[in-house]
Amino acid sequence: MARPFTAEDFAARIERAGSAIQEAGLSGFLVTPGADLLYFTGYAPTAITERLTMLVVAPDREPAMIVPTLERPDAEAAPGSSNVELSDWADGSDPYEAAAPLIDPRGRYAVSDATWAMHLLGLQASLPETVYVSMTTALPTLRAVKDPDELERLTAAGEAADAALYDLLEVRYSGRTEADIAADLTDALKAHGHSEVEFTLVGSGPNGANPHHEFGERVIEDGDMVVLDFGGIVDGYSSDTTRTVHVGEPTDEERNVHEIVQRAQQAGFEAVRPGIACQELDRASRSVIAEAGYGERFIHRTGHGIGLTAHEPPYLVEGEELPLEPGMCFSIEPGIYLPKEFGVRIEDIVAVTEDGGRRLNTTPRELTIVA
Amino acid sequence: MARPFTAEDFAARIERAGSAIQEAGLSGFLVTPGADLLYFTGYAPTAITERLTMLVVAPDREPAMIVPTLERPDAEAAPGSSNVELSDWADGSDPYEAAAPLIDPRGRYAVSDATWAMHLLGLQASLPETVYVSMTTALPTLRAVKDPDELERLTAAGEAADAALYDLLEVRYSGRTEADIAADLTDALKAHGHSEVEFTLVGSGPNGANPHHEFGERVIEDGDMVVLDFGGIVDGYSSDTTRTVHVGEPTDEERNVHEIVQRAQQAGFEAVRPGIACQELDRASRSVIAEAGYGERFIHRTGHGIGLTAHEPPYLVEGEELPLEPGMCFSIEPGIYLPKEFGVRIEDIVAVTEDGGRRLNTTPRELTIVA
Repeated sequence: MARPFTAEDFAARIERAGSAIQEAGLSGFLVTPGADLLYFTGYAPTAITERLTMLVVAPDREPAMIVPTLERPDAEAAPGSSNVELSDWADGSDPYEAAAPLIDPRGRYAVSDATWAMHLLGLQASLPETVYVSMTTALPTLRAVKDPDELERLTAAGEAADAALYDLLEVRYSGRTEADIAADLTDALKAHGHSEVEFTLVGSGPNGANPHHEFGERVIEDGDMVVLDFGGIVDGYSSDTTRTVHVGEPTDEERNVHEIVQRAQQAGFEAVRPGIACQELDRASRSVIAEAGYGERFIHRTGHGIGLTAHEPPYLVEGEELPLEPGMCFSIEPGIYLPKEFGVRIEDIVAVTEDGGRRLNTTPRELTIVA
Repeated sequence: MARPFTAEDFAARIERAGSAIQEAGLSGFLVTPGADLLYFTGYAPTAITERLTMLVVAPDREPAMIVPTLERPDAEAAPGSSNVELSDWADGSDPYEAAAPLIDPRGRYAVSDATWAMHLLGLQASLPETVYVSMTTALPTLRAVKDPDELERLTAAGEAADAALYDLLEVRYSGRTEADIAADLTDALKAHGHSEVEFTLVGSGPNGANPHHEFGERVIEDGDMVVLDFGGIVDGYSSDTTRTVHVGEPTDEERNVHEIVQRAQQAGFEAVRPGIACQELDRASRSVIAEAGYGERFIHRTGHGIGLTAHEPPYLVEGEELPLEPGMCFSIEPGIYLPKEFGVRIEDIVAVTEDGGRRLNTTPRELTIVA
């Protein structure tokens, strides 16, 4: 385990956010429970519920957090709470009226992407002249550039996921179900240090052609391609990697498709450097697949940021002009999906360095034959 | 297990919602992944992510659902999808532009409470003359009145939680930690049919005075009050019950406070009948506690609805004038919290019947002495 984040760490993050707010022309930002709140205060309520909990960060005032009265003791105990002015609202009172004094009534605020619409609508009704934008739209780099302590955690998460993959190269596939393999993945992720297993996708044969196929009762057979996409939480940070394996000897087409995806993944990785727009990585991977004649079969973006959550900015997608910065971490995960036949996806997490990229997953990307 | 819900069940729910929409003066409602989407389509994406998935229900058009292209196969496989016109949007395109043709550009829509603010802001930007309200504000009874199949599931969930509580009356408390007891609770909930354990609150001694204290490493001692508040999922529906036990012989004050809470819980229950406003149940419970001199120590509302989620409308809180209807289900859970000393809470789920209420939890509400 890395050292726990301290009140000073959280204060420094809030301080850094102050300049981002001004550059973005915002009055401040509003954070509700989830990754943003963890990032700025270390506070995670027992459950994310219908009751409003909200942190207000604005350059012209002390950071302030309003919480339900009955959760105040938990909020006070969070490591970053000493940096914020705490207030509470009781059941039966209006939380938006209680929050209003913390907000400039003519201000323009970014709000956490996953804030409940109910809360945003409550604020819009209580403060009709305020304007809101999503965090991803207004402040896409707020959590996207990881500091050394975060990079250490993401590196450890990548190593733990890789160790799980190595275990999965040794198990038997033929004659077992996708659910059996998913259970093996869960065991391996936990054995290698994951506190939570978030997803274990096992797409065998035609199921692999559905990129979000979770796993099912299909019995894996000799001759199947199998997409393994899995991840979870290590020391608070997410892992996420994908390898595609083959049970027994692959056909020429299977080898060919896998090799195209591997080249596309490599092309995306080689394009990584500070200053390049996110969409350029998508183009780099996609063009390899398109030139090989499979452009229509790569039906998703090339990648997503990762950190306290498995999906966060930056997104590697056409139209995303955000430039890469050292410390950003994201997946590069091109795929080819042939309906009713099979799918191939290869995914590594990559951290942007001063002059390129560093893979946080390092298991073999070549097609591995399993039993 | 009760029989699975069918396409016809989902169609009937959408049909019923049509008249609620018109009575509420809405153009329709917008549903994103979570309990509302499960209720109307049976569809639960593998993960709730930044990608827009949205069901549009409006009286003047066929129900329609827009999903990410890569999740389309999963959406098509959901039991209620045959009732909806399915469309998809691809990564790199604008999901709000893609959704716009499904929405009246001057319409007024209710949206799922937990819809991501990012999505609501996207819709507001794409369709600047639309107006939105939260589901709980505009259509509080949409899922609040349970049909017989749902009541059967909630009854089973209550029985499973009660069986877990009986197990917990037999275990040793003295000398063990709250975390140990929480682990016992998890085991008992699973042993009695819970597919997921959502919360196991164990508040011993002074920790019980924090209503949302989860559990910790405090060693429970002879003389401690212990609040046990736990629940999870049985066949898709939530359980949630609380009992407060005492390790060894209680003091007169402990007996007295527990007896007040028990009377308050009974008063709330006896007030249940169709037509009465939700806030009247809160008042019935609260007045017992206030008259006993502990009004300031009952620091939360009296209860919340329950169904596909652990917290949903109707809320039993001052200011909630919604009248009870047969089939509504909610907790009645008054408590008294004495900082640095102890807490007491007693919670049953109650279903509204034609002429009163029926408890879905039936374990003894008297103070039980444990070892």
